[in-house]
Amino acid sequence: MFKVNEDYMKLPGSYLFSTIAKKVSAFTEANPDKKIIRLGIGDVTQPLCPAVIKALHSAVDEMASAETFKGYAPDLGYAFLRETIRDKVFKPLGAEVSADEIFISDGAKSDSGNIQEIFSRDTKVAVCDPVYPVYVDTNVMGGRTGTYDAATGLWSNVIYMPCTAENDFVASLPKEVPDLIYLCFPNNPTGASITKARLQEWVDYANENKAVIVYDAAYEAYISEEGVPHSIYECEGARSCAIEIRSFSKNAGFTGTRLGYTVVPKDIKTDDGVMLRDLWARRHGTKFNGAPYIIQKAGEAVFSEEGQKETGEQIAYYMNNAAYIKNGLAEAGYSVYGGVNAPYIWLKTPDNMTSWEFFDHLLASANVVGTPGSGFGPSGEGYFRLTAFGSYENTVEAIKRIKSI
Amino acid sequence: MFKVNEDYMKLPGSYLFSTIAKKVSAFTEANPDKKIIRLGIGDVTQPLCPAVIKALHSAVDEMASAETFKGYAPDLGYAFLRETIRDKVFKPLGAEVSADEIFISDGAKSDSGNIQEIFSRDTKVAVCDPVYPVYVDTNVMGGRTGTYDAATGLWSNVIYMPCTAENDFVASLPKEVPDLIYLCFPNNPTGASITKARLQEWVDYANENKAVIVYDAAYEAYISEEGVPHSIYECEGARSCAIEIRSFSKNAGFTGTRLGYTVVPKDIKTDDGVMLRDLWARRHGTKFNGAPYIIQKAGEAVFSEEGQKETGEQIAYYMNNAAYIKNGLAEAGYSVYGGVNAPYIWLKTPDNMTSWEFFDHLLASANVVGTPGSGFGPSGEGYFRLTAFGSYENTVEAIKRIKSI
Repeated sequence: MFKVNEDYMKLPGSYLFSTIAKKVSAFTEANPDKKIIRLGIGDVTQPLCPAVIKALHSAVDEMASAETFKGYAPDLGYAFLRETIRDKVFKPLGAEVSADEIFISDGAKSDSGNIQEIFSRDTKVAVCDPVYPVYVDTNVMGGRTGTYDAATGLWSNVIYMPCTAENDFVASLPKEVPDLIYLCFPNNPTGASITKARLQEWVDYANENKAVIVYDAAYEAYISEEGVPHSIYECEGARSCAIEIRSFSKNAGFTGTRLGYTVVPKDIKTDDGVMLRDLWARRHGTKFNGAPYIIQKAGEAVFSEEGQKETGEQIAYYMNNAAYIKNGLAEAGYSVYGGVNAPYIWLKTPDNMTSWEFFDHLLASANVVGTPGSGFGPSGEGYFRLTAFGSYENTVEAIKRIKSI
Repeated sequence: MFKVNEDYMKLPGSYLFSTIAKKVSAFTEANPDKKIIRLGIGDVTQPLCPAVIKALHSAVDEMASAETFKGYAPDLGYAFLRETIRDKVFKPLGAEVSADEIFISDGAKSDSGNIQEIFSRDTKVAVCDPVYPVYVDTNVMGGRTGTYDAATGLWSNVIYMPCTAENDFVASLPKEVPDLIYLCFPNNPTGASITKARLQEWVDYANENKAVIVYDAAYEAYISEEGVPHSIYECEGARSCAIEIRSFSKNAGFTGTRLGYTVVPKDIKTDDGVMLRDLWARRHGTKFNGAPYIIQKAGEAVFSEEGQKETGEQIAYYMNNAAYIKNGLAEAGYSVYGGVNAPYIWLKTPDNMTSWEFFDHLLASANVVGTPGSGFGPSGEGYFRLTAFGSYENTVEAIKRIKSI
């Protein structure tokens, strides 16, 4: 008789963004005349840039002829893309990453969800709180998190590292030593960034304790300040303790195009000499068949001169929105964080509202959709996330509405 | 201190096709003047058909404009594709499948590798022997297979169902009752097919024992004979015991384009009423972010009138190759199976050679790459797989060379 994975049954409720989608859908049905502005899910709205569109058309044409048709891709991804990433992303930072340590995937969500699988079941995981839900939920599915306490919203076997206004949303080193540490900077959801000096402390801590850091750098393209690292490999010693996850979703608008990559350096080894890189390669070869050729060609185009210029303009567009939201809310008396090195604005809910109360209030009064901070973890309670990914017109309209309530 | 997933360490050697690629690469380096013909990996060679190319270009254009740009896809996949599949694949077979039981993915390999995850760790798995390696390897990674015996090539906790010439390569019902049964018809690697009456026996057996069948129908488009079911849902009662995995790789040449889908009917429930469909939905929502929009549009085009005509011609082209291989090898005195309802030809190695001996022999003497039967399991020893996915010219040349050795 078949039995289901009991670890799945532990997951409380449904995935945060599915819940939001259902609430919005119910509101829209009840109020068909209201024009909703979505600054909730971090989904981009600007079209793919001309350099990417050109590369897509060209790759589609290659698929139309037997001479240039592409079947199964190499396990790790096409060399043209892995080598471009090595040369255009890591070399300029002085970060030593080789092409066969770069694994092309269908996106950072898949990678950040799947990476836990190469670690043992009794791995002790540390996460920031609030945190991107995928890190915790996939470890729940992997049987590592213990039991859930609905009252606190905490799992018994997870080390939580609170990130609040009191510590500028940068976690302190945990007292209990974890085996696996998830860090995301610039941060989703808080929009906070970390200095190179602070990140170096984390790298040193991981090396001292033989812990592994999963560093989610999906938002690095939004960094505007000096002294904020674009990659964890800018830190000394990171090659022996850090996996870095990258995305094309936010820097090039690939949320619906699906492309990402993960770096697993060969220097991360057990005492027996087992390389995490080889386990991840085995996973890629066994459970995945590569990102589509035409999408990998699109990814390559992002790094062309035109691609860099055009995606740079998109990022500037969104960061202009971020500044508009940040300034507008500050003028309206809100306490506002983030929005300088990240496309997320993190605000304190007014009048001691809970995050979901503020969600409902904002939806009903301003017809604006944001993301409740508590959806990202208990320390997100009393906070709320707005994203800069809307159109400028919608962003301006949303702030106008929020100011008037 | 981090520890790796010990279940990964149990996997012997590397993934079959990676090993073949390395052998071929070594041979090519040593013999740069030899022209290799690859009839090994089941990778297609015909370009995407015009209807699909047109849909891809059109979808790329949509991504170029803010008005038609698509970001994150719905969790299950776009309704336009799920509804088309319901109407064009299942309705004509009289199979009752609803659109919200269809999950769009990046391919059948991912789905057949990931599906084990929604079952408990102590699930007893049954597989045909020989078998597509992904079913077993992913259950090894999931900790379900016990210990590996290098001498026999068997896992202690897996039920093997031998498929050889003696039983026409269709497994008999196992004596020990499994919880989860993997079946693939038309079969990879043997090219065998199953009658509807025989498949009905499996469905009845699963329902009686509350087991679940994972039915891999990736090759259904190659069925040429009457009485051979295209979907397990043609069988009575399959909705309460069978998951079906489908691919666009072989019927439409999407090996490098990546698209597949899996059907998980709501009728598969535990005694507590937990639906497997909901667990799979949770996995999709948490660890995956959908197939690219432009690829889903390409998938839709496969079902258009032109798409069906054009992909039908591709299938006829490959099946003409299959007949050529089958007849040519039979003339040369080989015992040959498959190739009628499947693009695979399964042959008995001559002179009691092992499968890998014949691989090396064929590579060295005819410069033809095939796949050793033993790579698919112990009962594949002494067999060898050739695929019909080459060009007609290469297929003819390969048979000429094989005949001359």
